[in-house]
Amino acid sequence: MTQTLALGIDIGGTNTAFGIVDRRGQIVTQGEMLTAEHNTVQDYIAVLSDKVRVLMDEVGRDRITGVGVGAPNGNFFTGEIAYAPNLPWKGVIPLAKLLAEALNKKVTLTNDANAAAIGEMMYGAAKGMRDFIVVTLGTGLGSGFVANGQLIYGHDGFAGELGHVVAVRDGRTCGCGRKGCLETYASATGIVRTAKEWLETRNDETLLRSTATLSSESIFEAAEKGDAMALQLFEYTGMILGQILADAVAITSPQAIIFFGGLAKAGDMLMKHVRYHMEENLLFVYKNKVALLYSALHDADAAILGASALAW
Amino acid sequence: MTQTLALGIDIGGTNTAFGIVDRRGQIVTQGEMLTAEHNTVQDYIAVLSDKVRVLMDEVGRDRITGVGVGAPNGNFFTGEIAYAPNLPWKGVIPLAKLLAEALNKKVTLTNDANAAAIGEMMYGAAKGMRDFIVVTLGTGLGSGFVANGQLIYGHDGFAGELGHVVAVRDGRTCGCGRKGCLETYASATGIVRTAKEWLETRNDETLLRSTATLSSESIFEAAEKGDAMALQLFEYTGMILGQILADAVAITSPQAIIFFGGLAKAGDMLMKHVRYHMEENLLFVYKNKVALLYSALHDADAAILGASALAW
Repeated sequence: MTQTLALGIDIGGTNTAFGIVDRRGQIVTQGEMLTAEHNTVQDYIAVLSDKVRVLMDEVGRDRITGVGVGAPNGNFFTGEIAYAPNLPWKGVIPLAKLLAEALNKKVTLTNDANAAAIGEMMYGAAKGMRDFIVVTLGTGLGSGFVANGQLIYGHDGFAGELGHVVAVRDGRTCGCGRKGCLETYASATGIVRTAKEWLETRNDETLLRSTATLSSESIFEAAEKGDAMALQLFEYTGMILGQILADAVAITSPQAIIFFGGLAKAGDMLMKHVRYHMEENLLFVYKNKVALLYSALHDADAAILGASALAW
Repeated sequence: MTQTLALGIDIGGTNTAFGIVDRRGQIVTQGEMLTAEHNTVQDYIAVLSDKVRVLMDEVGRDRITGVGVGAPNGNFFTGEIAYAPNLPWKGVIPLAKLLAEALNKKVTLTNDANAAAIGEMMYGAAKGMRDFIVVTLGTGLGSGFVANGQLIYGHDGFAGELGHVVAVRDGRTCGCGRKGCLETYASATGIVRTAKEWLETRNDETLLRSTATLSSESIFEAAEKGDAMALQLFEYTGMILGQILADAVAITSPQAIIFFGGLAKAGDMLMKHVRYHMEENLLFVYKNKVALLYSALHDADAAILGASALAW
């Protein structure tokens, strides 16, 4: 008996990862490619479908029941990517339609954080949970909210933009054109922005002044060496994230918040501050109830698994 | 054929309203009593069940299929009222259990705003909607979030506390013990607090200085007469509410936000500012999509209908 399989595709600003997945969440075969070097979506789809067809031929095209795609600003209802600031293609892209034509398979699309939430629910840290939030701390801050065992898509498919909740009124300019969005503070790029601001406006000694390339990784390395400013950068970032998570808890009261993405790799260096400031700001009925967890899935895998789960 | 009926009870800080409702949402008979004068919950339950039994006897006790209760801080999962600051009884009150014993009927409890959301979905402005928010602007600010056609209870039954999202960091002291909660600004008592602050710290002439009792109603009356401070009070209140609603939209992307309660009666005097500031603060994908509506049900009716709907 040949088992049916699903194809999952995770479109990120830099890379695209794809894999063929079985019902138990095992990735049978996978590959990746650059997203950013393709200036037109037609060019991108042509290269992607060539690469994906090779994998499909490996397992047998007929075994693929469908294709699920996670992408920034991906809309479950329309199959479109709408105005994604971190992708090279502007405006509204009918990605599900284009890919379905190229692969001759049914394609279902959602945003990358929603796909990750489905991956965690089916195969990861949220297995068996009915109410949780997934927060991706990457270039931006993405989120997927699950309530009553279902992903919250909202009436238009665009729910779950915690990264664009205003964390600081009239704060930093965001790529979305507004000010003070959470992701301008609490993300891999957000902590770097904070570091650059502090380096310009403060005089204290820090390893960060002699760091060739400021990144969430290099700030983490400095913090591990005990650098005071680097340690304080994680505290500040964790404070802002914790404050806004306390507000999000007041809306959906989740059992857990599950983190993944580059900045989440800082582990307790960040999370102890997130936990402290979230608890400090929680309404009493929620205190000491919300688990902060890390994704149980490898980053790329979670997104591929979540995307593939859309196809079943 | 005798039709089956449900009993709905809305417990407010001041009044308790109750009614017997048929399947189509018609209130067959109803009554009310004071909540606040009963210092013990036992006393309250005794008086309430006496009054309710009179109504049940009018229609025939056997026709009542069950009892639904909406109450501040009411928990759907446990049937308890937990630490409700606006009720005379402190701590955790097993209200569903006490009332079930008194009435010998199955009792289902939820918080008052959730009950209102169910009422609006079954019989009111949200009929046919699957994603919306109900906001009650009364003594406090309550909310019920519906996503995918289901009320969001959260893992513990305490979801939907928009009134305790922090609107102003380190702002006004709230009854919950924290600072800057939305309901300390955007509620019937919130607008009065703003008025009192302004009257103390400003010198401009206003009708409000000679108003015997400051209330949301008297501020509304002054605003209708063109009083500058009163008009500005609605603008300020609407601004803070609009800003936080923009954040809430980023989480659940509702089709509509439905308002009821005392302060909502100010109508466009408040709502034009809420709309303006919500739109100003919305992420672009949500702009000009979220309807701001008033409850289509009489205030007390919405709560009774919603509570009764729990019983079916």
